[in-house]
Amino acid sequence: MNSILTGGPDAGAILQAVQRIGPWVNKTPVLTSRTINRMFGAEIFMKCENFQKVGAFKARGATNAVLSLEKSLLQCGVATHSSGNHAQALAWAASLVNARAYIVMPSDSSKIKIAAVKDYGGIITFCEPNLASRETTLARVIGETGATEIHPYNNEQIIAGQATAALEFLEETGTLDILMAPVGGGGLLSGTSLSAHYFYPGTKVIAAEPDQAKDAYLSFTSRSFIPSLHPDTIADGLRTSLGSITFPIILEHVHEIVTVREESIVKAMRFLWERMKIIVEPSSAVPFAAIMEGKIETAGKRIGIILSGGNVDLETLPWMHHE
Amino acid sequence: MNSILTGGPDAGAILQAVQRIGPWVNKTPVLTSRTINRMFGAEIFMKCENFQKVGAFKARGATNAVLSLEKSLLQCGVATHSSGNHAQALAWAASLVNARAYIVMPSDSSKIKIAAVKDYGGIITFCEPNLASRETTLARVIGETGATEIHPYNNEQIIAGQATAALEFLEETGTLDILMAPVGGGGLLSGTSLSAHYFYPGTKVIAAEPDQAKDAYLSFTSRSFIPSLHPDTIADGLRTSLGSITFPIILEHVHEIVTVREESIVKAMRFLWERMKIIVEPSSAVPFAAIMEGKIETAGKRIGIILSGGNVDLETLPWMHHE
Repeated sequence: MNSILTGGPDAGAILQAVQRIGPWVNKTPVLTSRTINRMFGAEIFMKCENFQKVGAFKARGATNAVLSLEKSLLQCGVATHSSGNHAQALAWAASLVNARAYIVMPSDSSKIKIAAVKDYGGIITFCEPNLASRETTLARVIGETGATEIHPYNNEQIIAGQATAALEFLEETGTLDILMAPVGGGGLLSGTSLSAHYFYPGTKVIAAEPDQAKDAYLSFTSRSFIPSLHPDTIADGLRTSLGSITFPIILEHVHEIVTVREESIVKAMRFLWERMKIIVEPSSAVPFAAIMEGKIETAGKRIGIILSGGNVDLETLPWMHHE
Repeated sequence: MNSILTGGPDAGAILQAVQRIGPWVNKTPVLTSRTINRMFGAEIFMKCENFQKVGAFKARGATNAVLSLEKSLLQCGVATHSSGNHAQALAWAASLVNARAYIVMPSDSSKIKIAAVKDYGGIITFCEPNLASRETTLARVIGETGATEIHPYNNEQIIAGQATAALEFLEETGTLDILMAPVGGGGLLSGTSLSAHYFYPGTKVIAAEPDQAKDAYLSFTSRSFIPSLHPDTIADGLRTSLGSITFPIILEHVHEIVTVREESIVKAMRFLWERMKIIVEPSSAVPFAAIMEGKIETAGKRIGIILSGGNVDLETLPWMHHE
């Protein structure tokens, strides 16, 4: 199922993912706003993966990965370390086939995310809040259980699953001038760029990333892997480094990566809440922040944005200032 | 255009409203959630008027009323007193045909709502925050300008416009067992009940109202008009009294009015934000609060809810407790 050049999933693997996950995930709506179109002189389409199962596109990849496993492997369960949407997505996807999901979570994970993982039946092992502890704890859990690791992005079936969001989007809108996605580990971005490349090759894929976590931008422009060492961004889904599978796909099929300021992310997020009346998380607002910052040539263009998720702690919002 | 029995708009007036406002307002999406369906053993459909122009169904009625006026009248503009969504809706609708909108607003109206009315080109006159001052100020403005008053709900064209939301909804879902709307002045509710009656007569219309502003419930059950004297509810769109046109329609065509507690409204609102990832205002959450309170027999039923609007001050949310 590999593409010869990049090692990523081929077109057939993405079409198989569409079939495999179709009965389980939502076909999310595409929203538009005449106000926003007028502001930017463009036709802007937003694919609402915030309305996806578990509140994020991650449900697609996790479902594809879990349902791709042989039954003998599924009996031992699946495992990952994650403090974010992948943890919930994997627990949820495993529950669909009554498989166990072992989730290693840092002890400082938000209560809401811990509760959500438990709600989906995930079996949580807590670890210290650093990468070394996450990895050794995961290795131990896998040693004890025989579970199969499902990496949040550096996994062909995860990438093929995430790719279905862009394919579904482009099937609805037709070829776009520009298709935008945020970039963290690159699972969504690499999948998006493959779907555009295989099925709607006239569509340029542009990624957006926080200035304060711009490892993908630096890796892309230098064409050499640069890890995310000290990410300091509100966009909690975008703090990770690219992977050995996602980075080559991105290098080959992504047109450009642009970066945005923190204040623009908050502004864009609030704008989407106020004008579109939808709840998106900070990571989701990063591509629209790039448009608001004028980083993208919008005039006369048909532009798609994948709104990646909507999981936000509603107890406090980033534009609120408490003394 | 009157119905013989009630004095409300007839079927033709509603179909005319559909044609008249079609090019201007949004055909709003209908969302569903398998989680919510499972919780209540029902099929629940939500009509997202929070995604409507100006963020509320009020755009429908205001557009229908403004576009129904003769040109000679339009030249003198339109006028209303409102501190809520009708103010924005009328200013916006008037701007579509370059007519002036004179909006009388209480001096304690929220800054956001004042800014929105100005944004749409409305000409604001401030008054004291009581009904007497609102009415005398409006009378003075109309005396000076010759503008036509567009009442927020006690107006046939307003009712016919609001009725298009239910008609559009039922065209998408087909006949429902129950169709729910919140009730304040009764513009949305009377229109909803007329659309169900004329076009999908198998559909029972049930209204929901805050316990602490239950004048419509009392009026409905006693079959005699009882005004809203001391409404004390977070659902700011539902504090008004029924009107002489809306009340008889409601008496004739609404099946039941149920009431809900304040805490249920906040809980339902938060639930819709968290699970559906959409922003709805407190008034919008009142019908779903009734379902959460168990006031509606849901098992095996197909139930529609009109989510009336999404205009919320995002600086502070009702479930936040600050010291």
